[in-house]
Amino acid sequence: MVRVGILGATGAVGQRLVQLLDPHPEFEIAALTASADSAGKSYREAAKWGLDVPVPDSVADATVVETDAEAIPDDVPLLFSSLPSSVGAAVEPDLAEAGYVVSSNSSNARMAEDVPLVIPEVNADHVGLIEVQRDERGWDGALLKNPNCSTITMVPPLAALDSFGLERVTVSTLQAVSGAGYSGVTSMQIIDNALPHIGGEEEKMETESRKLLGEFDGAAVALHDAEVSASCNRVATLDGHLENVWADTREEVTTDAAAEAMASFPSADLPSSPDPLIEVFEDPDRPQPRLDRMRGDGMAVSAGGLQETPHGLQFNCLAHNTLRGAAGASVLNGELLLREGYL
Amino acid sequence: MVRVGILGATGAVGQRLVQLLDPHPEFEIAALTASADSAGKSYREAAKWGLDVPVPDSVADATVVETDAEAIPDDVPLLFSSLPSSVGAAVEPDLAEAGYVVSSNSSNARMAEDVPLVIPEVNADHVGLIEVQRDERGWDGALLKNPNCSTITMVPPLAALDSFGLERVTVSTLQAVSGAGYSGVTSMQIIDNALPHIGGEEEKMETESRKLLGEFDGAAVALHDAEVSASCNRVATLDGHLENVWADTREEVTTDAAAEAMASFPSADLPSSPDPLIEVFEDPDRPQPRLDRMRGDGMAVSAGGLQETPHGLQFNCLAHNTLRGAAGASVLNGELLLREGYL
Amino acid sequence: MVRVGILGATGAVGQRLVQLLDPHPEFEIAALTASADSAGKSYREAAKWGLDVPVPDSVADATVVETDAEAIPDDVPLLFSSLPSSVGAAVEPDLAEAGYVVSSNSSNARMAEDVPLVIPEVNADHVGLIEVQRDERGWDGALLKNPNCSTITMVPPLAALDSFGLERVTVSTLQAVSGAGYSGVTSMQIIDNALPHIGGEEEKMETESRKLLGEFDGAAVALHDAEVSASCNRVATLDGHLENVWADTREEVTTDAAAEAMASFPSADLPSSPDPLIEVFEDPDRPQPRLDRMRGDGMAVSAGGLQETPHGLQFNCLAHNTLRGAAGASVLNGELLLREGYL
Amino acid sequence: MVRVGILGATGAVGQRLVQLLDPHPEFEIAALTASADSAGKSYREAAKWGLDVPVPDSVADATVVETDAEAIPDDVPLLFSSLPSSVGAAVEPDLAEAGYVVSSNSSNARMAEDVPLVIPEVNADHVGLIEVQRDERGWDGALLKNPNCSTITMVPPLAALDSFGLERVTVSTLQAVSGAGYSGVTSMQIIDNALPHIGGEEEKMETESRKLLGEFDGAAVALHDAEVSASCNRVATLDGHLENVWADTREEVTTDAAAEAMASFPSADLPSSPDPLIEVFEDPDRPQPRLDRMRGDGMAVSAGGLQETPHGLQFNCLAHNTLRGAAGASVLNGELLLREGYL
Repeated sequence: MVRVGILGATGAVGQRLVQLLDPHPEFEIAALTASADSAGKSYREAAKWGLDVPVPDSVADATVVETDAEAIPDDVPLLFSSLPSSVGAAVEPDLAEAGYVVSSNSSNARMAEDVPLVIPEVNADHVGLIEVQRDERGWDGALLKNPNCSTITMVPPLAALDSFGLERVTVSTLQAVSGAGYSGVTSMQIIDNALPHIGGEEEKMETESRKLLGEFDGAAVALHDAEVSASCNRVATLDGHLENVWADTREEVTTDAAAEAMASFPSADLPSSPDPLIEVFEDPDRPQPRLDRMRGDGMAVSAGGLQETPHGLQFNCLAHNTLRGAAGASVLNGELLLREGYL
Repeated sequence: MVRVGILGATGAVGQRLVQLLDPHPEFEIAALTASADSAGKSYREAAKWGLDVPVPDSVADATVVETDAEAIPDDVPLLFSSLPSSVGAAVEPDLAEAGYVVSSNSSNARMAEDVPLVIPEVNADHVGLIEVQRDERGWDGALLKNPNCSTITMVPPLAALDSFGLERVTVSTLQAVSGAGYSGVTSMQIIDNALPHIGGEEEKMETESRKLLGEFDGAAVALHDAEVSASCNRVATLDGHLENVWADTREEVTTDAAAEAMASFPSADLPSSPDPLIEVFEDPDRPQPRLDRMRGDGMAVSAGGLQETPHGLQFNCLAHNTLRGAAGASVLNGELLLREGYL
Repeated sequence: MVRVGILGATGAVGQRLVQLLDPHPEFEIAALTASADSAGKSYREAAKWGLDVPVPDSVADATVVETDAEAIPDDVPLLFSSLPSSVGAAVEPDLAEAGYVVSSNSSNARMAEDVPLVIPEVNADHVGLIEVQRDERGWDGALLKNPNCSTITMVPPLAALDSFGLERVTVSTLQAVSGAGYSGVTSMQIIDNALPHIGGEEEKMETESRKLLGEFDGAAVALHDAEVSASCNRVATLDGHLENVWADTREEVTTDAAAEAMASFPSADLPSSPDPLIEVFEDPDRPQPRLDRMRGDGMAVSAGGLQETPHGLQFNCLAHNTLRGAAGASVLNGELLLREGYL
Repeated sequence: MVRVGILGATGAVGQRLVQLLDPHPEFEIAALTASADSAGKSYREAAKWGLDVPVPDSVADATVVETDAEAIPDDVPLLFSSLPSSVGAAVEPDLAEAGYVVSSNSSNARMAEDVPLVIPEVNADHVGLIEVQRDERGWDGALLKNPNCSTITMVPPLAALDSFGLERVTVSTLQAVSGAGYSGVTSMQIIDNALPHIGGEEEKMETESRKLLGEFDGAAVALHDAEVSASCNRVATLDGHLENVWADTREEVTTDAAAEAMASFPSADLPSSPDPLIEVFEDPDRPQPRLDRMRGDGMAVSAGGLQETPHGLQFNCLAHNTLRGAAGASVLNGELLLREGYL
């Protein structure tokens, strides 16, 4: 068992990390960090636990430490990070330099040239960018990122469609409130309402997706040349991002061929990778956030409403934003790092 | 004052018609119809009133009659119809033949070649199709339609952008539950959920918008040749359809030029037409359903989030689906019919 | 394994019964019934499945039969009923006469003198009323009821407090929409709203609770003499009824003594009975529907906010209304019937 | 026209005060205050406006000043306060000493012996306590309070029932999220959920109601001797507190007599006092928050579900918590202060 730490363990994604890692077949929680305010408290005290399962007994009484290389034990090689991005930007490089391998969900540095941005089922080979990173930065550890939750939701089906030559992607999202953290969206903002814009989110979808679908030649990742345009909306769902996607392709793509490409898109041989990775519905009313977000234990992507257009394919997709889209994405990347020998 | 009737007066849109027509500067309610079950009852009894204002006193005790030419007084020249489409298809032609002018919100016959489909601020001249209709069908009355609520929301801003040469429209909707009528969406379907498909709605948006934006040459309406692709979603809002639109145009369109074209798009000189017709927000977080649906007394269209794309413009728009998108649309068409001398 | 049938298997509670019985350590599903419309269809087709887990494979392709003694195999001794009460009233006695033992969630006949109304942890001995029932009615089978979901939520903590001499119970409920079935509450009724009345519900709480807490002397059940007054409200939660209770007692009851009485109230030695039966929270903000309804796999009752009053105790309680409050209640009663030798 | 100031003008209640005072027949807004952060900004900039009507033009560009006697013009005799209670406790006495008359919604000092707590329709005479206050504190100005929103909702009907001799009041609330301010309840707390406790709220209802219903003898207010026990819940409604009340009375009270007492309870002869004050519904499904909160322009109290109990009467009541329950309550008290000559 590899001893792991959770950076930012008291937040919404941090709690999901705790839930996923207790228990986990390869990892055991050995450190929980949070801001200075929480350091010294028990996890139960420090976390305002908001999940519908109780705090796991094994961590409830563990003492939270500050997010700092000094405070984290040396024999914890792997750190999962769900820090606010400004904190991540400040702390993650120090930790990587100090020898820790950091699998991070924080949004900082995702587009940095020597930082791999990875979904194991889509672009596991990009993990090799760590060699470049270590060379350039002189780090013993490493920093690897998973993409934004809304990006993760659409990239697996887009990767499946890329065999038809992706040229242009237009996407509209209906995102759950948990994506903004526990206090990110107030009740007065969202009851009987929807918000037509999520600051920074459109840009993340437009750039991260092209890096994920890009080619790694051993030295650098070339962004995919598809044009991506996103419009992001917040709606009154707790978990599960639903997205309407139009994929324009060079080659014609029939609904059947697209469904087949998605349904047969391979999962990774890692403990948290679901099989199938993409569940394709024939019923146009599916997937729905509440009914389908837990498919594959919250790690599958669902697709439906496939329909040919004059330019390619139109479809809907859904994934659980704090499992597949955040905490689970980081854990999966940790599993990849272990398998590939980076720990 | 023109005496008017409301067909299907007890439903969700029928109640909005009552609200808008009591009082109205040109019309007075003289007949309320519903199905045979409700006929003979007082309106208060027959309607399961669901608005947050009381039933107007003037109609509360009026007797509901059956939706039938026999039951409607002869001296009521104008009928507003919010009948279920199957009922509308059966009854509206009979009423038009019997000499009534029917301004209808029902979805039947909207794409029929000799039935005008009208938003007065956009294509008032299409009302002339009534001459063709009367010639062909030998009617003394007439049948005129307003489009579907989700179509109405996007067509005014698209009409404003058509000066740049609309080529392709991609639209994703976040539609309010009232669009499905009082019992159309159950609470179990929508709490903590969103529905990725609304049966028939995508097609309505794709065809009706092209008829509205098309040219009427005195004999027929030629559909606009833009390609329109829609994806329709239901979310947990009561009223107000929010839409993300990508408009590809032949000519380049800057954000400023687009905002100017929308903000200066003329309203109609009719009692229910708001001025301005389109309210353009600079704040990308607007428009929002709850905050902006009542602009222009529920008859304005709001737009925001304007952004250039390599192919044209991306923007969001919003309108109140049961006012501008249904009951108000029919009333406005009634006002047009009066002004143009069809009553 | 006892072969069992589910009457009304396609409804909201019927689906929960399927979920609980597949798998179950003592029972296996051998018959699924519904109305004539659904008979002959596969279960997958007939049920508009609304749970966030897929339809179990073992029943998905089973053929639904009509709810009728003829259509149900003879070698299925135990039937779980979640029929609409009017259907239950018509059919259940026939089935009991035909030799089936019926554990029913339907509201008909709950207060009938020779029909046991049972929560196994509270009044398992009332099951003996079946002897009286068989004598009087000449049945080979039997009919046993579980109470209404809102009643089940409060009765275990009240039973715990009855050692202090219950005299008067005042209860206000915040009930989830699933209690009304899939179509019982529309979205327009409940978004940004609450409903202050649930037809018939107040009376059920006021009478059923007194039967459950009453004494069975081998011949009849004497209602408990506490006065019970309920006010029932519907709120926008999917599952989980939350209740504010004031229990006036003859003897003084301290918060500590009450907490102890609740926490130590014994569970039943049956597969579906959770241990502890009642989870008592110190945090006054708990229990909450979303966070706590799944305690004890949805079969526990949670209590919190205990506070002394001049007349006794004030507290809140919560239970999952379609698990502990309906489907799980029937299954638990089935387990009791098996243990007590009635099958 | 009396020039008035609004203390804490940018908060949720402050915005409602702006809405109610622009325009108002007797008052005109002459000062808007907020915390030091907002001072110097225009009101439009400083307030994160959240109402579904636009910011009134007359105040949009007004400059916000700090909440401080120095910063408020001297010729503004009346101040409406919706400050956070800790700020109110620090600032309001200074302002009263400096000669301002403060009509405050803040919760500080409501139970102070020389501070009148007033609902004009219920206990207008308590305003005379200002004489005692001025004598004791040597103030030129004055401090007068309105009660908490949940208290205001039930007190008018309880005052109507007090003719039957109120002895014990048991109340359970379903409170709207706006009562907690714009950020008080997060979306993750309330979607598919209800909160069984509101810190401090129960105690406010239990004490403030007894002061409001108490007797003022010219020197002091004697609390009413009824026992009041409250349980306060937060639900997913935007505005409108719904309450289930059990009123035990010394004399028997029939449903008819209670309805008559409520319906005929006099309104005050003040601009913001609605007539009737209490709207009594026969339909047990009413009042409902969304449908009935705007009765009497948001200033009426609705009652329904009246039912006799062995001890008195059970009923439901509803009022708009930020209009009748907060901003409107302060404005109404300002109107009373003007009429009674305290300005």
